[in-house]
Amino acid sequence: MRTTIRDIALRTGLSVSTVSLVLNHKEHRISEETCKRVFQAAKELNYRPNQAAVSLITKRTNTLGLIIPDITNVFFAEIAKGAQVRSQELGYSLILCNTNDDPEKDVDYVNVLLDRGVDGILLVTSVTSGKTSGEKCLEILKYTDKPVVLVDREIFPGTSNSELPGVFSDNELGGYMATKHLLSLGHTKLGCITGPMGAQSSKHRLFGHIRALQEAGLSFDPALVKEGNYHTESGFRLSGELLDIGVTGIFACNDMMAYGVCRKAAERGILIPTQLSVVGFDDLPFSEFVETPLTSIKQPAYEMGEAAVEKMIGILANPDLPCESTTFQPELVIRKSTVAPYMQKATN
Amino acid sequence: MRTTIRDIALRTGLSVSTVSLVLNHKEHRISEETCKRVFQAAKELNYRPNQAAVSLITKRTNTLGLIIPDITNVFFAEIAKGAQVRSQELGYSLILCNTNDDPEKDVDYVNVLLDRGVDGILLVTSVTSGKTSGEKCLEILKYTDKPVVLVDREIFPGTSNSELPGVFSDNELGGYMATKHLLSLGHTKLGCITGPMGAQSSKHRLFGHIRALQEAGLSFDPALVKEGNYHTESGFRLSGELLDIGVTGIFACNDMMAYGVCRKAAERGILIPTQLSVVGFDDLPFSEFVETPLTSIKQPAYEMGEAAVEKMIGILANPDLPCESTTFQPELVIRKSTVAPYMQKATN
Repeated sequence: MRTTIRDIALRTGLSVSTVSLVLNHKEHRISEETCKRVFQAAKELNYRPNQAAVSLITKRTNTLGLIIPDITNVFFAEIAKGAQVRSQELGYSLILCNTNDDPEKDVDYVNVLLDRGVDGILLVTSVTSGKTSGEKCLEILKYTDKPVVLVDREIFPGTSNSELPGVFSDNELGGYMATKHLLSLGHTKLGCITGPMGAQSSKHRLFGHIRALQEAGLSFDPALVKEGNYHTESGFRLSGELLDIGVTGIFACNDMMAYGVCRKAAERGILIPTQLSVVGFDDLPFSEFVETPLTSIKQPAYEMGEAAVEKMIGILANPDLPCESTTFQPELVIRKSTVAPYMQKATN
Repeated sequence: MRTTIRDIALRTGLSVSTVSLVLNHKEHRISEETCKRVFQAAKELNYRPNQAAVSLITKRTNTLGLIIPDITNVFFAEIAKGAQVRSQELGYSLILCNTNDDPEKDVDYVNVLLDRGVDGILLVTSVTSGKTSGEKCLEILKYTDKPVVLVDREIFPGTSNSELPGVFSDNELGGYMATKHLLSLGHTKLGCITGPMGAQSSKHRLFGHIRALQEAGLSFDPALVKEGNYHTESGFRLSGELLDIGVTGIFACNDMMAYGVCRKAAERGILIPTQLSVVGFDDLPFSEFVETPLTSIKQPAYEMGEAAVEKMIGILANPDLPCESTTFQPELVIRKSTVAPYMQKATN
């Protein structure tokens, strides 16, 4: 059974009220010697205060909620790990919620987390989140004073500014960098496999892709853009259609889909990079270790998780902080999956 | 601000005590009509009961803790996802704790979770957990009535039976199946890259490997076994040493390390499977989608996460249940990374 103040009183021979005064750091005139005895007994018996009782008084639970689409996507796992480890360092626990990218679950989990009395919510919205789910979340949050920090994805697709603070990366710039890299190698017929178009991150990566094409004087051909869903299987499936049109390079809007592209190429006996260049996005840890190490756009997912927690705890300490977002800069990591097209022809 | 019973009283014009009786499902003689008005107002104002107050009365928080080594390892992410989704279905929330395979963190998190008042703990112990950490966890748990369910790894290396209920997979059988598959193809010089030897799962996979070798009349050569750490980088590094000795097949004790083996082979211009056969363990979702789809031992990680939650909730409902463990059977999934050695010679 859990050790109570009564057990410590029994062990020390002191009264329950004396033990309570000492352990709850209330004002008292109890001798230092006695205090030491109480703390010693508490330690020996592994006494831990009843957090439900503490929470009723402080109105704080030192618990945060994290709502994410899919913990088995390594990008979100990195965010979750950064958030959890930083929470713990700052004295908070983290409740994990998986939505499987279902906007209705966003709403369910916001309610569940408020019921649990979390001090705040870190929210990666579902990619199919339309205005309805976002508005619904905000509607629920109106009835509480609990802050929300968005991570990776904004809540209202189509608006550039959110009413909520968040931690994002510059997806437009990342899409631009990935495409510019392929163009600078000399490719002119590029395919793009996007994430789901309901998500801001997907749109922005595509916008960056188009900007780079336009800067290079290339017209935008919708036939070269395929809408994926960030899962490996969609990269596998859609790259087949792009290879049929004869692209020499593919920008897959995340690494998971890029792995699918490489798999399809292998199935068709197409060598990477000597016959096809591939760029991913996220720079997942094992993109360095796949058979052909992947050129990718690095997003600092772990740091984004940490930053979201720090922002949240800043808000909890000072609720009048202005609502600001943090944007991380992506970085191009060049590995072995991209090469100039004339080198491709030389080997064909 | 959060809606209180007072707000509902104001909205309905009823007394606070009337509203409280209705919402807390206490005995009362209030008319059905009035009850309806109370519930209607509660719904409109998004009233949610104060869980800290509820917890003080019920002594339950409907919260479970999950302690895992590394959420960015997809195997553990699958366990976490299964556990979280099943918890939610059964009305529980899940607090996530990442130990980075540090046994001291096991102990820290057990304490943190008890402080948070979780109803029970799902524990994947750190792989370097010696008797010290396991005993320390049990020592702490003695002072509480909170149940623990072990997942994937037993707490005492070196003992076959644990004092705690758990959900495991048959690692010995898995190691046996992986090795027997390579032997049945005709390989006789096999390398093995194990996990950290402090972990039961690693030991058992190696024991299975050795049993298959012995059954085939092959003597066990320690030079062909390298101790890895379940991370891709160790598969990459150690496979170099095995290739130097001239193995024709490698059993990597998890898929993450198998990816490292494939990467090293690619770096040396060695083709898989035509010059080297590779078997992994875990059957991670994208082992199907890597360039050379990986032959692997499937562990039902998601189902193990679900089963751990179900076992925990069974214990919470009936604390006198006998302490039993569940063992899942692994399954050999044959893909493109393994082939007979005579086919290798034909292409050399």
